[in-house]
Amino acid sequence: MNSTAQALQQKIDTKTKPLGSLGELEWLALQVGTIQNTLTPVLSNPTVLVFAADHGVASEGVSAYPSTVTAQMVLNFLQGGAAVNVFCKQHNIKMKVIDAGVNYDFPPQMHLIHAKIAKGTRNYMYEPAMTEAELNLCFTKATKIVDRLAVNNCNIVGFGEMGIGNTSSASLLMSHFCDLPLEQCVGRGTGLNDEQLQHKLACLLQAQQCHADLTEPKQVLAALGGFEIVQMTAAMLAAYQQNMILLIDGFIASSAFLAAKAINPDIQDNAIFCHLSDEQGHQKLLAHLGVRPVLKLGMRLGEGSGCALAYPLVESAVTFLNQMASFESANVSQC
Amino acid sequence: MNSTAQALQQKIDTKTKPLGSLGELEWLALQVGTIQNTLTPVLSNPTVLVFAADHGVASEGVSAYPSTVTAQMVLNFLQGGAAVNVFCKQHNIKMKVIDAGVNYDFPPQMHLIHAKIAKGTRNYMYEPAMTEAELNLCFTKATKIVDRLAVNNCNIVGFGEMGIGNTSSASLLMSHFCDLPLEQCVGRGTGLNDEQLQHKLACLLQAQQCHADLTEPKQVLAALGGFEIVQMTAAMLAAYQQNMILLIDGFIASSAFLAAKAINPDIQDNAIFCHLSDEQGHQKLLAHLGVRPVLKLGMRLGEGSGCALAYPLVESAVTFLNQMASFESANVSQC
Repeated sequence: MNSTAQALQQKIDTKTKPLGSLGELEWLALQVGTIQNTLTPVLSNPTVLVFAADHGVASEGVSAYPSTVTAQMVLNFLQGGAAVNVFCKQHNIKMKVIDAGVNYDFPPQMHLIHAKIAKGTRNYMYEPAMTEAELNLCFTKATKIVDRLAVNNCNIVGFGEMGIGNTSSASLLMSHFCDLPLEQCVGRGTGLNDEQLQHKLACLLQAQQCHADLTEPKQVLAALGGFEIVQMTAAMLAAYQQNMILLIDGFIASSAFLAAKAINPDIQDNAIFCHLSDEQGHQKLLAHLGVRPVLKLGMRLGEGSGCALAYPLVESAVTFLNQMASFESANVSQC
Repeated sequence: MNSTAQALQQKIDTKTKPLGSLGELEWLALQVGTIQNTLTPVLSNPTVLVFAADHGVASEGVSAYPSTVTAQMVLNFLQGGAAVNVFCKQHNIKMKVIDAGVNYDFPPQMHLIHAKIAKGTRNYMYEPAMTEAELNLCFTKATKIVDRLAVNNCNIVGFGEMGIGNTSSASLLMSHFCDLPLEQCVGRGTGLNDEQLQHKLACLLQAQQCHADLTEPKQVLAALGGFEIVQMTAAMLAAYQQNMILLIDGFIASSAFLAAKAINPDIQDNAIFCHLSDEQGHQKLLAHLGVRPVLKLGMRLGEGSGCALAYPLVESAVTFLNQMASFESANVSQC
């Protein structure tokens, strides 16, 4: 523990409450204060970035929904009708939608961030999902998005996504970065039945076989990623460079985080894992990282919805640290 | 499922998200809509009631803190310095502090609800904690408090408490109403060490012995309750009569709920259990009721702090139900 962390712990322990009685809120307060290196942290301009893209592998029938839903949901985001919209609105969180690679031509005047790499990735069952140039473009574009947030005084950013087929990519990345058998990383996504789940697993085993020789994180990302996942990885790394607080949503955002951590292990200091997804695999992924999620509500929606729902609890951590009385200031006896 | 519940489930299932993907928020939406018998529920004037009282048994050294802390913390509530204050303020929740029986003379002009029964209960190790007349007075006063909230258009109310020694009373009530051995119901409260915990258990075993013949819920409450606990029980029953949504905080509020449920089993339809307390016993108590808490943050503070922290999630449930687009309205394909 550095000296700020020690002073923070001291401040937390002298608040008018039994020692440790705010549980995980106390850890959040300690983490946020340590990130900002202050006893009086501030959350400013909270923003959720929702990266959207299509996936070549979707044509194999690995999702319960057709690929066209990616673009339809982006339009739904822009109209304010999705879950993440209403939760962000509830908590005064800004939300930005990024076309990282949706198979649809959004008119240039539409209020979204145009960062399209291509109209969906290639099918990684047979070839790398993207080229090295495309991967690098993901990093360039996503970094620029985050740097712009920083200029606008945002110091806490959530990472969400939309992309039919993207639990497949996330499972492959998890299997690689957690070194776990694919069977433990593959789940029902948006709602596969048993037979469809077996089919998904068979497809992904073939994909894994096809790229088994890769070890370098960026190569793995290029082979198995989606454009939205790689842009999330890049955006997380950029947000860490800006010393922002990172709100990691569910299974897919966590898989992007695994890749980011493989590139820069220090990033975990700034990351808050917003919820435990109901997607099978997420619990093991979080255990691999050694972290505890803020919420456990059996959700499996993505979009950054978990970031928006966990945000008020991060805010509560900051609020109690800044606003609660101490035993001394309130004249309350200690035990 | 009645017809409103069916229509609510239908509405939930046609929102633009995979079926069931909002997890427990969907159950909350269903519950709140069913309580209000509408597809478009509204939360109005959310209020947390914090009942405070002292306990005769505290003189036995069953708490890590001295009894004087009850009054000190009430003054802290009135000055806005406690955890529940800052969380209520964060979420625009009204907070009312009730002197149900604190061993302190609060000046009449102080901004709290004066409902003192006596300056603390008697020591239930040797005699009933309160008389039947005192118990009835608890019911009369608490009912009046809730009825006034209803007049002021409050339809969601949280129940919190402050009272040094009150985990002891809660453990005894839990043991009775859940029919579980006291050992499974007694915990460290505000922070007892092993030796102190054994002492607490010994005291409570003696108290249990002393009142072993009682079975009628109100008699049990009078024998083993605290004034704040009995007033919570009464307030919960009154809030149910007003068809309010009940936010139940942690271990002590849950023990008051057990008594309320013994008096009127239907009350559970309107109750939301806000968090899983770190106090040993709470998990078993909630399992006995067959309910899932909204938050699991390892907190053990009381005061209604869990109500204030869970409130935004109840609000999120209502918000998604009312504001999210449907597959049809957003032109999104279903699977």
